[in-house]
Amino acid sequence: MAGGEKQGSLRVLVVGGTHGNERNAVRLLEHWRGAPDSLERRGLEVVLAPGNPAAIAAGRRYVDRDLNRSFLPELVDDPHHQELEARRARELLGAWGPEGATPCQVALDLHSTTAAMGNSLVVYGRRPADLALAAGVQGRLGLPVYLHEGDPAQRGYLAERWPCGLVIEVGPVPQGVVTAAICHQTQLALETALAVLADAREGVARLPSQLVVHRHLRSLDVPRDPDGQPTALVHPRRQDRDWRPLRAGDPLFLEADGATRGWEPLPGDPPVVWPVFINEAAYEEKGIALSLTQREAWPVAKEWEASLRVLVDPQGKTYLTEAKSG
Amino acid sequence: MAGGEKQGSLRVLVVGGTHGNERNAVRLLEHWRGAPDSLERRGLEVVLAPGNPAAIAAGRRYVDRDLNRSFLPELVDDPHHQELEARRARELLGAWGPEGATPCQVALDLHSTTAAMGNSLVVYGRRPADLALAAGVQGRLGLPVYLHEGDPAQRGYLAERWPCGLVIEVGPVPQGVVTAAICHQTQLALETALAVLADAREGVARLPSQLVVHRHLRSLDVPRDPDGQPTALVHPRRQDRDWRPLRAGDPLFLEADGATRGWEPLPGDPPVVWPVFINEAAYEEKGIALSLTQREAWPVAKEWEASLRVLVDPQGKTYLTEAKSG
Repeated sequence: MAGGEKQGSLRVLVVGGTHGNERNAVRLLEHWRGAPDSLERRGLEVVLAPGNPAAIAAGRRYVDRDLNRSFLPELVDDPHHQELEARRARELLGAWGPEGATPCQVALDLHSTTAAMGNSLVVYGRRPADLALAAGVQGRLGLPVYLHEGDPAQRGYLAERWPCGLVIEVGPVPQGVVTAAICHQTQLALETALAVLADAREGVARLPSQLVVHRHLRSLDVPRDPDGQPTALVHPRRQDRDWRPLRAGDPLFLEADGATRGWEPLPGDPPVVWPVFINEAAYEEKGIALSLTQREAWPVAKEWEASLRVLVDPQGKTYLTEAKSG
Repeated sequence: MAGGEKQGSLRVLVVGGTHGNERNAVRLLEHWRGAPDSLERRGLEVVLAPGNPAAIAAGRRYVDRDLNRSFLPELVDDPHHQELEARRARELLGAWGPEGATPCQVALDLHSTTAAMGNSLVVYGRRPADLALAAGVQGRLGLPVYLHEGDPAQRGYLAERWPCGLVIEVGPVPQGVVTAAICHQTQLALETALAVLADAREGVARLPSQLVVHRHLRSLDVPRDPDGQPTALVHPRRQDRDWRPLRAGDPLFLEADGATRGWEPLPGDPPVVWPVFINEAAYEEKGIALSLTQREAWPVAKEWEASLRVLVDPQGKTYLTEAKSG
């Protein structure tokens, strides 16, 4: 640890504008920088970092490739990859990564979506510290949690590269639009996450007994013709109904000729699924009209809280290093 | 008139994707091309034209400059202007302009907005034929009409360059998102406009006795600091409240410190104004947070219908030429 730093401080990286056209978090970061008292930090050291300054300046999601799919070992560890976002991922890790110049133990990545996700969390995989943090926030605010895992087509998320990290995802809001309501919800979720971390550090994490997750099953594209052109829209009875149950035959797409196409489960699918990220603007290029999840209530394991405490404890860095090398 | 064409046919240019990230009209055009019977044309000759194919392909509003501010004499009439949109404006006029290879008498330009404008019309200035067409649509559907005029900062609209033309503006919808509801509203407004034209051609325009317009007064930017950075947001009690009255002192902006800034009329302003295009994503770069209008009910003048009939009448082209040279 660099000399002169407070021993055992917990440093949290807060990123906004990982996607340059998600402007609410960008505006919040500027606001918190200009008026530091306007963000309740609960005694934690908070580093505010713009995710993708070049994309923010251009008002676009990204320049060369999606930064939030660029934290891949093959990109980050290979200095020959010179796409703008590969370089930015290396920059962020070099500055504030767990082994960076000013190491952060936790990364909170602030996003918005055109889908009606409300105020929600996205967790990648099942790392115990992430689950503890998500459970703490859900226990305080009731936010739904999208657990993203097992999707080989979508990987390389920023938050995955820090020992603990998650996405705060708020919508619906158009790309390029900043609203008071979206800013308010984002700040509320962030301050609550910081409160959970601060509480955990003081040994009073106050986690609920269970965590309700919406676990990723798979994503669906709209129906397309042989040329790849869409032949249907998200059904109006499904649009804006993220986190609501979908059963076999329920209206899912509206064909160009006006016919309704209901949901057709695959063998092995559960009887009810819960769509998220319905009609997110940025996912069309990824061939995703919505993602199907399964709603599950998991008991909060003692191990989760212990893992979070190792991270946030004054001696946490030492423990973490031991844990990683063990 | 080119040989072989039906004498006196009324040809209507329908443009979608004048802004490349307004996808609903782009999708509709593809649909109507693939399934011609899916658009009720009322016997009119309808030309379907993508506004800005390069911007559509890029998923951006424009490439070099806003196409819907590029129909300016100094750009269109000067072949040395080589910005992509200046060239595209010349192309559209050369192909389907009133003096083009396949001349169209009317242009209907299909747009969407992130603002909560609902299904609405935008008319530029006070050309009698435009007002007649707008009145006919309003009489059938009740759509609100934004009358844009007297704004030297915003000119060069596509619809202005045709003898008769207006914009169908539908929202709210994020840029890049296509929904069944927005497509449905767009098609309804378009088919109604075509019906008014077809009825006028048959001498039965059936215009209402009055036209309610929201006449442009001026646009407002968000408050900014000396560096040009925004210091406030649209107030949450004003967001999504397009077409609703605003009086002196009513909440308009929310300052970063949480203070509400009410509307402060200028000397000469009416006691009530009606904001439109509130927080439209694309207008931030234009320094427009919203536009103020004055609501006025105008008697429908006989001259309006006469002017529209001259256009749509089988002999209309001749009359129009006489009218223009008179």
